[in-house]
Amino acid sequence: MNGAEVIFETLARSGLEVVFTNPGTSEMQLVAALDTVTAVRPVLGLFEGVCTGAADGYSRACGKTAATLLHLGPGLANGLANVHNAKKAGSAVVNIIGDHATYHLELDAPLTSDIAAVARPMSHHVESLVGPEDIATGSAAAMAASQANGGQVSTLIVPADLAWSTAQVDPVTATLTAPSQADGDIGPAVEALRDHPERTMLFLGGRGALRDDVIALAGKIQAQTGCRLGVPTFNGNVPRGQGRAALEGTPYFAELAVNFFDSIDTLVLIGAKPPVAFFAYPDKPSILTRPDCHLVTLAAPGAPCVDMMTALVDGVGADQAAPRTPVPHDFGKPSGPITTETFAAAIARHIPENALISDEAISFSMNLPQMTLASAPHGWMSCTGGAIGQGLPVAIGAAIGAPGSKVMAITGDGSAMYTIQSLWTMARENLDVIVVVVNNAAYNILQFEMLRTGANSISERAQTMLGLGDPRLDFCAMATGMGVPAVRVDTAEALDDALARAAKEPGPQLIEAMV
Amino acid sequence: MNGAEVIFETLARSGLEVVFTNPGTSEMQLVAALDTVTAVRPVLGLFEGVCTGAADGYSRACGKTAATLLHLGPGLANGLANVHNAKKAGSAVVNIIGDHATYHLELDAPLTSDIAAVARPMSHHVESLVGPEDIATGSAAAMAASQANGGQVSTLIVPADLAWSTAQVDPVTATLTAPSQADGDIGPAVEALRDHPERTMLFLGGRGALRDDVIALAGKIQAQTGCRLGVPTFNGNVPRGQGRAALEGTPYFAELAVNFFDSIDTLVLIGAKPPVAFFAYPDKPSILTRPDCHLVTLAAPGAPCVDMMTALVDGVGADQAAPRTPVPHDFGKPSGPITTETFAAAIARHIPENALISDEAISFSMNLPQMTLASAPHGWMSCTGGAIGQGLPVAIGAAIGAPGSKVMAITGDGSAMYTIQSLWTMARENLDVIVVVVNNAAYNILQFEMLRTGANSISERAQTMLGLGDPRLDFCAMATGMGVPAVRVDTAEALDDALARAAKEPGPQLIEAMV
Repeated sequence: MNGAEVIFETLARSGLEVVFTNPGTSEMQLVAALDTVTAVRPVLGLFEGVCTGAADGYSRACGKTAATLLHLGPGLANGLANVHNAKKAGSAVVNIIGDHATYHLELDAPLTSDIAAVARPMSHHVESLVGPEDIATGSAAAMAASQANGGQVSTLIVPADLAWSTAQVDPVTATLTAPSQADGDIGPAVEALRDHPERTMLFLGGRGALRDDVIALAGKIQAQTGCRLGVPTFNGNVPRGQGRAALEGTPYFAELAVNFFDSIDTLVLIGAKPPVAFFAYPDKPSILTRPDCHLVTLAAPGAPCVDMMTALVDGVGADQAAPRTPVPHDFGKPSGPITTETFAAAIARHIPENALISDEAISFSMNLPQMTLASAPHGWMSCTGGAIGQGLPVAIGAAIGAPGSKVMAITGDGSAMYTIQSLWTMARENLDVIVVVVNNAAYNILQFEMLRTGANSISERAQTMLGLGDPRLDFCAMATGMGVPAVRVDTAEALDDALARAAKEPGPQLIEAMV
Repeated sequence: MNGAEVIFETLARSGLEVVFTNPGTSEMQLVAALDTVTAVRPVLGLFEGVCTGAADGYSRACGKTAATLLHLGPGLANGLANVHNAKKAGSAVVNIIGDHATYHLELDAPLTSDIAAVARPMSHHVESLVGPEDIATGSAAAMAASQANGGQVSTLIVPADLAWSTAQVDPVTATLTAPSQADGDIGPAVEALRDHPERTMLFLGGRGALRDDVIALAGKIQAQTGCRLGVPTFNGNVPRGQGRAALEGTPYFAELAVNFFDSIDTLVLIGAKPPVAFFAYPDKPSILTRPDCHLVTLAAPGAPCVDMMTALVDGVGADQAAPRTPVPHDFGKPSGPITTETFAAAIARHIPENALISDEAISFSMNLPQMTLASAPHGWMSCTGGAIGQGLPVAIGAAIGAPGSKVMAITGDGSAMYTIQSLWTMARENLDVIVVVVNNAAYNILQFEMLRTGANSISERAQTMLGLGDPRLDFCAMATGMGVPAVRVDTAEALDDALARAAKEPGPQLIEAMV
């Protein structure tokens, strides 16, 4: 075995099943190693941000670790924005980065950079292999770090000479440590739920809390006490839809979010962090809860919560309570122009059973969360780190991580363009992804934000930086260019029909909704 | 004036004329500031790597500083690979990165990251504005750093509250310091050129040396002494073609490069670093010159060289010598399949006068440098940092930096896909760029590299990571989707015809060459 084979064999024995690759010369031995380590499936992306976003989506869908294989510092850099999103999502990812041979580094060849320094701001753990003796233990440590605390980003830097040399060590299996059970004192939460339930909110976040069983327990508490159930604005994967207790999403704009929390005296944090504004604005608060709101932390992000939540159910006497679940609502087939409302109605009607939704429609997502509350059961994945360009890549990974589920990627035109290369990987892997692109010919959210700066209107010059209409993007043409069948719709009826058809057909498809 | 206006006014007074933007909410005040600071032209890119690569291309074309305007750490990360290339090219770039308001940072909102840490590995200078009193001096310092040492990468981090607040200071003008004149001792070089001229090479690199006047002086020395003239494999912008002394390019593959330098006893470094292999390979040398080769450094990278070169001309008595210039050669209209040879012949025949060539055709570039030596005068821009995905963005910047010149971007299918969004900006700005995509349905260079690892053949599994044929990319469809007229050619004749037509037409065009 050479070093590359020991590395991948160690990762495979430790549970790795998929690697999203965009390799270069310094990774050729790692590519070749996958001939012998067949337990790991390689999936090619044509841009590194596709690979890192797909790794994020895979882990969101199934909880397992996904790897990427990227080319030195610049390859990692190209993937770094989606690594940021993965880190904020609590996804389990190992980014494997090839480096120059150890003795070549000092020569400062053109592709030389400080890879660890590039990785560190977006990684929980950086493992630089430095000698032949640590390739197995180092790889195992990177894998273990990815599963620590419920999901982390780990970077594994592999110098080329360690990969190509005959290995001096055997593969090992990583010891994966389950995250600690949530152990917050439930006393103050029980008290608040008894004393002022309607002014108490259970605020759930992260993989330990956003699970069917925990949400069902939260639903019992809500049914028994009348408290509110909330989630952060953007989350890795929220189980929702018919039969599940509904969680209220925190509004995106700070002023609306302040209203959302205004009546809350006690916020019980279950895997979520204290809610803060996405951005600061002049004379607007950055902290969304009232200054006198009492924050009670019951679970750290990623910590398993079932035992603690069961105790909380007992504490408030809710074990016999039946969670309130959303009442199915038939919006009827929408008609007329595609607006945020007719759009959401069409989506709500056609979410396939157990689908995973990757939402990056930004301004056009406005009515989606509310109107899909009673859709068929599904998972909702959003832009956890705010780094736009994750919607399509996350859909790739989700489709591979949850092969029985349809994936629906709902994206704006602006957001789709950051990682449009994703379409090709969907075609190559024949993934069950329905891509819905809202083509409004603008960074519409930024037009909102510009007006919110106090500008009364958007100047012609500013519009050249916020509008995408000249020339207008043609997503059907681009999809065709990358092998994905596509259809354009101009009305809500046509959108509804296209979604109905797409829900029945396998393989990738793109629907371009002109608005 | 608010802070944003003071920042842009300071940059404009210090010579900034263009900013390549992909802004977000935290940059809205900076976008609005361009309404008043009209001396700076905003150009929108749909992905940050387009912006940073365009800034690089602009500076390569005209030497002036270009700015980018990007959205926090993830926006910078998306542009970082092309910042790496710009840094290695010695281009003058100021990356303006918006950050959260100073008081918002500690809340760790989703988009929070350590921007300075992300910037540092790829920047010569990082300027973080920390208070209202330093927004003018800090902006001027960032601008000055971009022009130091002949061209540097500078990062300017602007917290949103400093941008939106009423400014406490006035704009200033940066003091730009010209780089020091080359001051190496010419004695040993004169001696080598007299004693063993045919075993001496003048090795020119960087902006200080790769200029018409310096190359003309090098040509005189060559004509007088018989020495060789060389350049590194990849360079920012090499003036070449009819009427100019020809510089020999260092081969890409280490074994060929070792042969290239094998007869050289004295290598005279004029703005270039000692040549090293792009990658290390088992049992192959990383240093390309012979161990006993004498390296003589006459100029640091970026240092102006005309005075020193004039002294060298005098030192070898070459002031009356006439540089040898390449003899024009008519390849005739190529025919048959598109091969590296017929491809290069067609390009060589149709390079427009004073064109700038952005070369990222990788494996298909093989015959281009040699066969275009006697083409119409042109500048040759290549992938200085080895981070693929710069070819199309650099062409954007070059077209804006040298408005009288046609730009030809020659790219592989694999390389084009990293920053394919560039096509839209070419269309929006109606840039005079001819994009030639070689569609060979593979990362062909990696297929070479895989065989060079010692593998006898490429396994089916490895081929899934190196081949792009399933599905085959359709660049005409993608170009149409982004507003660029496109044509597909399957033969050398059709390629030749398409290039002849394109050379006469204004505006962006794409030619997809199927091979």
